[in-house]
Amino acid sequence: MTSPLLSGLATEIIIPICAVIGIVFSLLQWLLVSRVKVTPDPNGPPSNKNKNGYDDYLIEEEEGMNKHDVVVKCAEIQNAISEGATSFLFTEYQYVGVFMVVFAILIFLFLGSVEGFSTKSQRCTYDRARMCKPALATAGFSTIAFLLGAITSIVSGFLGMKIATYANARTTLEARKGVGKAFITAFRSGAVMGFLLAANGLLVLYIAINLFKIYYGDDWEGLFEAITGYGLGGSSMALFGRVGGGIYTKAADVGADLVGKVERNIPEDDPRNPAVIADNVGDNVGDIAGMGSDLFGSYAESSCAALVVASISSFGIDHDFTAMCYPLLVSSMGILVCLITTLFATDFFEIKAVHEIQTALKKQLIISTVLMTIGIAIVSWLGLPTSFTIFNFGSQKVVHNWQLFLCVCVGLWAGLIIGFVTEYYTSNAYSPVQDVADSCRTGAATNVIFGLALGYKSVIIPIFAIAISIYVSFRFAAMYGIAMAALGMLSTIATGLAIDAYGPISDNAGGIAEMAALFGAFVSRAGIQTVDVLTPKVFIGLVVGAMLPYWFSAMTMKSVGSAALKMVEEVRRQFNTIPGLMEGLAKPDYTTCVKISTDASIKEMIPPGALVMLTPLIVGILFGVETLSGILAAISASNTGGAWDNAKKYIEAGASEHARTLGPKGSEPHKAAVIGDTIGDPLKDTSGPSLNILIKLMAVESLVFAPFFAAHGGLLFKI
Amino acid sequence: MTSPLLSGLATEIIIPICAVIGIVFSLLQWLLVSRVKVTPDPNGPPSNKNKNGYDDYLIEEEEGMNKHDVVVKCAEIQNAISEGATSFLFTEYQYVGVFMVVFAILIFLFLGSVEGFSTKSQRCTYDRARMCKPALATAGFSTIAFLLGAITSIVSGFLGMKIATYANARTTLEARKGVGKAFITAFRSGAVMGFLLAANGLLVLYIAINLFKIYYGDDWEGLFEAITGYGLGGSSMALFGRVGGGIYTKAADVGADLVGKVERNIPEDDPRNPAVIADNVGDNVGDIAGMGSDLFGSYAESSCAALVVASISSFGIDHDFTAMCYPLLVSSMGILVCLITTLFATDFFEIKAVHEIQTALKKQLIISTVLMTIGIAIVSWLGLPTSFTIFNFGSQKVVHNWQLFLCVCVGLWAGLIIGFVTEYYTSNAYSPVQDVADSCRTGAATNVIFGLALGYKSVIIPIFAIAISIYVSFRFAAMYGIAMAALGMLSTIATGLAIDAYGPISDNAGGIAEMAALFGAFVSRAGIQTVDVLTPKVFIGLVVGAMLPYWFSAMTMKSVGSAALKMVEEVRRQFNTIPGLMEGLAKPDYTTCVKISTDASIKEMIPPGALVMLTPLIVGILFGVETLSGILAAISASNTGGAWDNAKKYIEAGASEHARTLGPKGSEPHKAAVIGDTIGDPLKDTSGPSLNILIKLMAVESLVFAPFFAAHGGLLFKI
Repeated sequence: MTSPLLSGLATEIIIPICAVIGIVFSLLQWLLVSRVKVTPDPNGPPSNKNKNGYDDYLIEEEEGMNKHDVVVKCAEIQNAISEGATSFLFTEYQYVGVFMVVFAILIFLFLGSVEGFSTKSQRCTYDRARMCKPALATAGFSTIAFLLGAITSIVSGFLGMKIATYANARTTLEARKGVGKAFITAFRSGAVMGFLLAANGLLVLYIAINLFKIYYGDDWEGLFEAITGYGLGGSSMALFGRVGGGIYTKAADVGADLVGKVERNIPEDDPRNPAVIADNVGDNVGDIAGMGSDLFGSYAESSCAALVVASISSFGIDHDFTAMCYPLLVSSMGILVCLITTLFATDFFEIKAVHEIQTALKKQLIISTVLMTIGIAIVSWLGLPTSFTIFNFGSQKVVHNWQLFLCVCVGLWAGLIIGFVTEYYTSNAYSPVQDVADSCRTGAATNVIFGLALGYKSVIIPIFAIAISIYVSFRFAAMYGIAMAALGMLSTIATGLAIDAYGPISDNAGGIAEMAALFGAFVSRAGIQTVDVLTPKVFIGLVVGAMLPYWFSAMTMKSVGSAALKMVEEVRRQFNTIPGLMEGLAKPDYTTCVKISTDASIKEMIPPGALVMLTPLIVGILFGVETLSGILAAISASNTGGAWDNAKKYIEAGASEHARTLGPKGSEPHKAAVIGDTIGDPLKDTSGPSLNILIKLMAVESLVFAPFFAAHGGLLFKI
Repeated sequence: MTSPLLSGLATEIIIPICAVIGIVFSLLQWLLVSRVKVTPDPNGPPSNKNKNGYDDYLIEEEEGMNKHDVVVKCAEIQNAISEGATSFLFTEYQYVGVFMVVFAILIFLFLGSVEGFSTKSQRCTYDRARMCKPALATAGFSTIAFLLGAITSIVSGFLGMKIATYANARTTLEARKGVGKAFITAFRSGAVMGFLLAANGLLVLYIAINLFKIYYGDDWEGLFEAITGYGLGGSSMALFGRVGGGIYTKAADVGADLVGKVERNIPEDDPRNPAVIADNVGDNVGDIAGMGSDLFGSYAESSCAALVVASISSFGIDHDFTAMCYPLLVSSMGILVCLITTLFATDFFEIKAVHEIQTALKKQLIISTVLMTIGIAIVSWLGLPTSFTIFNFGSQKVVHNWQLFLCVCVGLWAGLIIGFVTEYYTSNAYSPVQDVADSCRTGAATNVIFGLALGYKSVIIPIFAIAISIYVSFRFAAMYGIAMAALGMLSTIATGLAIDAYGPISDNAGGIAEMAALFGAFVSRAGIQTVDVLTPKVFIGLVVGAMLPYWFSAMTMKSVGSAALKMVEEVRRQFNTIPGLMEGLAKPDYTTCVKISTDASIKEMIPPGALVMLTPLIVGILFGVETLSGILAAISASNTGGAWDNAKKYIEAGASEHARTLGPKGSEPHKAAVIGDTIGDPLKDTSGPSLNILIKLMAVESLVFAPFFAAHGGLLFKI
């Protein structure tokens, strides 16, 4: 057992520096975006010239751009959307806040009860010779970590939404000057969010570890057990964000599309549509804030899973701080790599036509993956001992640093493959989407049937890629390897976030690996040696677990459906009763539509949220860890299903892009496309992404409560 | 260890007698149905009076019934449908026949190679003191059993179709005389098929066991290993029947509905619709012949799973023939109970109004379940020793006869609960379907969203019922208990078949139990002690296995979609080019539509069929039994998904029944309902039922090939 080349002190410095670089870079991008003015400037154009030369174009008064009324209108709409989104998020956070406080109390009580609220130090679980801090302390710190994770998640989501609404109007204004400008503004906004999320998550986690260490000292087992609360907090918040935001946005979207596009033949986002503001608010709170929280949650969970396993491996036992921080070092390197990659899109090359965007985004994926491979090699070489041992269900497995390098790489490259497969199945340049689009000629029904079939088919290669990653990384480094493969897949997330279609799919697929890692960590903490599906306790867990995603989907889809029903009726009512609305002479009542979406999402997000949060608790207490393991095994497998749910975006991809070329707006194929689009919507934006969180959240929650279930669980079988 | 009260000789006599009673009863019902004449009788009405008095009404010439042209037209349509169905089935059987012969050769070669085609007797696997027949013999007998199962399945499906087409016109003619008459005719036709299937399956299995015993003598281990081929043959045929028939019927149905109902506003089954004959042929080959094969397959598999476990338990070791035949005795009792139950519907009570039908069918379920409970008690009391041992993954577990009685009962009653839940979610008397129907007011998209949500929700209670059954029956009698619970659920299948909506759902849910039993049997034969999801081999199996149902669904739905596209275009072409078609003056070209469905289904059924049949072989050979176990565990859990797929019939239930009251034909809500109906169709009738077979077929195939995989599997890991 050698020491890593990088000293503990160097690690202590490098990680926060990388995080700060990420934050600074993010702020710089924001600054560049904010150079685009959305208030008409009576004093003429500003004289300072940015070295990228973007405001050269902004100040040129060609073809009536910068005309007073256009800019004012953009600013007006931006304000309405921003206000709506902010007010919704505050309402949401109030309700979720109450839930979070209650849950924090539960965490403290349950974990504190493991040793009967004793304040005395106890023998460590894995190293009986040593003394560890009392369970009561770990309960307290887990609760703090939980709240910290939840708050970081809220901040990530909220900032993401702010940036997006801030960039909306600016991208629109730039778009009048050509695709290159608009692309760079949009891409920069994406980068602000991506870097802020990645860097923020890393920094808070790093600070928490260092602060907790002051109390825990040498007891790293307890320290990283408490840190898992961070992951739980992050993903609990993500769940509510996704479900609440998802219901909001889809109720508005479905309502706006069905009446506006199908019945009234007006375009998407037409200001005459009463639901149009609600629809746009929804995009920002659901897709942006939701996704921000979600990706932060994934990042926090994978890191916590890796750290908790490392803490009971030789890294933790030998108190090797650099090696212990290997997951954080990989994330730090990810920030640097993504930074360089971003420059390729914004500064080294220029986009001149719409068709070049796809290629530019694909290049981003390839560049970041290639650079990251080198980066991981450097981190593995400097940050790891040449050989070490990893905890593997009770025994210690000898692992070499190059093996861990391969584990991270296999995850990273699997992510790239998944990205390309997704591109193939969602781009209208290839036959799958064209087939779906052609099917619109025979109506909405065949469109949906083809879209579902395509969605099912599109997950085949990703699943094999994931299966191979899991097998290889487990072989090399047990469940620590799987956790690192998952982190590898997320390591270029700052870039992935800029490429929306790719991000969620990759995250979803990576969810299986994350889940496997969390599951492994849970099993270790709960002291389980095998999860044998041939025992009835595990088997019923398997069967019930496989059903949970459907139950959850039923709840969320029903919620979207009910809210959409109300929205459709309200929009129809306004078109029928407000004179001059269709002619653009009267203003619709946007507020009522915003209210319908807000009320529906706040009310309806609680039951599915409670289902997910309470199931592990109830099953753990009543049936014990074996049944809970079965449930986790089933839902990790059925994330395959989660992937296809998300994949139903293909109905939409087929419906929205190519099919519109099949007929003018209002033609039968076009109407069929819109109906298909609408059906795909809640699957893609509400049930799909939430399912992915459901799966990981249950695992991380089980991990946090593992000591409690091991001590007091399985009441039903004890009777 | 005592002997059962029933002697071996008595068992040898009772089983075939019960089977023959079932066949005779079935023929009697056929006779009663055939009393309804569809040829106009120039010699006047027949004078013989049936004691039930049904032909009293037939011969009365009231309100122009029996008018020459009505009867002639009915006969004409019946002939067209019957000819179309027969010709399709013969084509299908030719193609599948080739596949079956190839697969039979594979079975012989693979199983024969286990001991290197040696013709010498070997030491038994479970009782090393005894000598067993060579693997080559078991290979040969397994092949024979496989072909026997396939042929029985073909006969079951074909006869079912014949009876259905035979009864079609007769029910129609009776319907003119009132609902009571039509109900009884339809019910009798269902009974013909139900009893024929149940009795036939039992008889052939019984004869095969007795014939094989002549060769095997005391080697019951080899005997019942060979018998599992019967289950494999039955379900292989069922898969092709379901997939081929499913594609056929849905291509025709979707095509007919979309053009006829949505575009042309003509009613369902209107003779002006060119696809109408294809549609009706489809109903008979897909829903009837497919379902017949399917249920026979389920029955054969459950019986084989129970028998193979029994053969290595004390029943087999002690050569206790009566106890060994306990599964067959339960099925025999099932035939008698269903016979009595049928009399309640046809002879003891009379239906006077349409709304009474639901109640009458519900009564059938309750009566058969209550009677069967008593029946199982008698069989368990007479046919089992008071205590015995059951093989439980390497050890022997002591079980009492009353425990086995409870195992069968728990399955039986879970079936009843599932039946009622299904009724609640599919009947328009309750709120779920009404909600779906109301959602048609806002269009097809909300209809589909609500339908999917309902489908997801409807499986929650059934899954819990199944989970409890599995847990209880495993606790009492290990995997033999689960196999018997599955048989308990199927024991009243003769009655269940008469109640179509109930039958498949219950079969689907029961599939999980069947699958668990087959899985247990496979694990025993393959010599596996634990299936630990924490090992990477099992875990990747779990992940890949969870994906298979989606892959399969993608294939089948795409096939239906493509065929439906062609059908829609052909139907449109005929409406546009044949003058006088809409006015009913010209006859459409039915033949082209029939040909489109036939060609599509024959061509498209091969790839999904091959996927299912080859996956266990490839995985077993390349990755070995552990990965295969993982796959089986995942798909047994995702039958939960299979259940929801089938459950998408709720879209249809909502769409077709209540919604039509929301508006006249041709109104927007009505069109929305038809689109929803169309999307639900392939899910309900092609992907859904086939998925259930996929799951069980893979398990029974793994079971048959278990000795081969154990000897030669896992090549990839050996390198």
